[in-house]
Amino acid sequence: MTQEEIPEIVVNRLPRYLIMLNQMAREGFGIASSTMIAQRLRIKPSQLRKDLSYFEGYGRQGAGYQIFQLIDVLQKTLHLNRIWQVALVGLSDLSLAIVNHEGIARRGFEITLALTANPERDKQKLNPIEIADIKDMEKKLPDAGIKIVILDVPAADSQEVAERLVSCGVKGILCCTSVVLNLPNNVRVEYFNPLESIQRLTYYVDD
Amino acid sequence: MTQEEIPEIVVNRLPRYLIMLNQMAREGFGIASSTMIAQRLRIKPSQLRKDLSYFEGYGRQGAGYQIFQLIDVLQKTLHLNRIWQVALVGLSDLSLAIVNHEGIARRGFEITLALTANPERDKQKLNPIEIADIKDMEKKLPDAGIKIVILDVPAADSQEVAERLVSCGVKGILCCTSVVLNLPNNVRVEYFNPLESIQRLTYYVDD
Repeated sequence: MTQEEIPEIVVNRLPRYLIMLNQMAREGFGIASSTMIAQRLRIKPSQLRKDLSYFEGYGRQGAGYQIFQLIDVLQKTLHLNRIWQVALVGLSDLSLAIVNHEGIARRGFEITLALTANPERDKQKLNPIEIADIKDMEKKLPDAGIKIVILDVPAADSQEVAERLVSCGVKGILCCTSVVLNLPNNVRVEYFNPLESIQRLTYYVDD
Repeated sequence: MTQEEIPEIVVNRLPRYLIMLNQMAREGFGIASSTMIAQRLRIKPSQLRKDLSYFEGYGRQGAGYQIFQLIDVLQKTLHLNRIWQVALVGLSDLSLAIVNHEGIARRGFEITLALTANPERDKQKLNPIEIADIKDMEKKLPDAGIKIVILDVPAADSQEVAERLVSCGVKGILCCTSVVLNLPNNVRVEYFNPLESIQRLTYYVDD
């Protein structure tokens, strides 16, 4: 199975499936039907089966899923069966909340380096993470072998800093500001922006 | 145009289009082709045109879009041409970052009420927002006429608290914890979870 085989829209749903499967595992489920899992995810069973049909041996109606096996398959697919070293570039309350987020650490993401405009001011907040000046990115990042970055610099600087990240070998950016980054196709950007999320609600809440 | 006409997947993309259009407006664009906007969004022009074809008069190739008019249409569609009063229910660093997020306030979302398990402890952090005990939700929420809530109680309590929110008339929930809520179909849930977002990156970052 190569990466290209799973459409983006399916990849985007897999972390949510993982949350549900982990929840069911904690509740003691060993096996469950696609109908039951889909019901709890509030999606159609046919959609779940179609999404899981990208994984060999899954997606057949009535077969039943081994919960732990399915978790394992999804984690491997998303490359979550390892520790990821992550750098924080820039800092606000939002990215600080990510750095301190329990789930991030428990699921294999280690924030090992922070680059900010004012390391002296920020080092207390980010202790014990190694911190350096964002100016020194080109000295620090490539050596650390970091591929994933949480980007939280001011919107006006985001594109320029993102381009520097790419030239340092970064392949995935979790972007916390209200911008649209314009980067090469082999670099993946995911936006983490509360405004976008809340604006997705209001369409459905008319009064 | 009724709500049912725009598919969820398109609705989910509209806030991102708005960010891009606002960015172009700030840069001085008055009109732009679908090709140019799509290029900057890093999507196919055909996808942009198809998405905008849900709006009367849009989606035709070569017509060019009036930036401000398109912003207006998208904002009206998403019901963003008004002030939304929002309640915070529960509190962590993540939801506090949302409450203090500049974009949220500037785009018409007012956090007017907070309900936490320990209002005495939290009131300093949330000042000047009115704060009450989460136990008093049934007294406070319906009177305030609040339809949208940021939910950030511990994962184990989320389902129960969410059901109480629904019985208080809440129609949209921005959920900050790693759970899957099981609520009636007329209630919209959007998840704001850094773990899910970062897990969407790793699939594309193999090494």
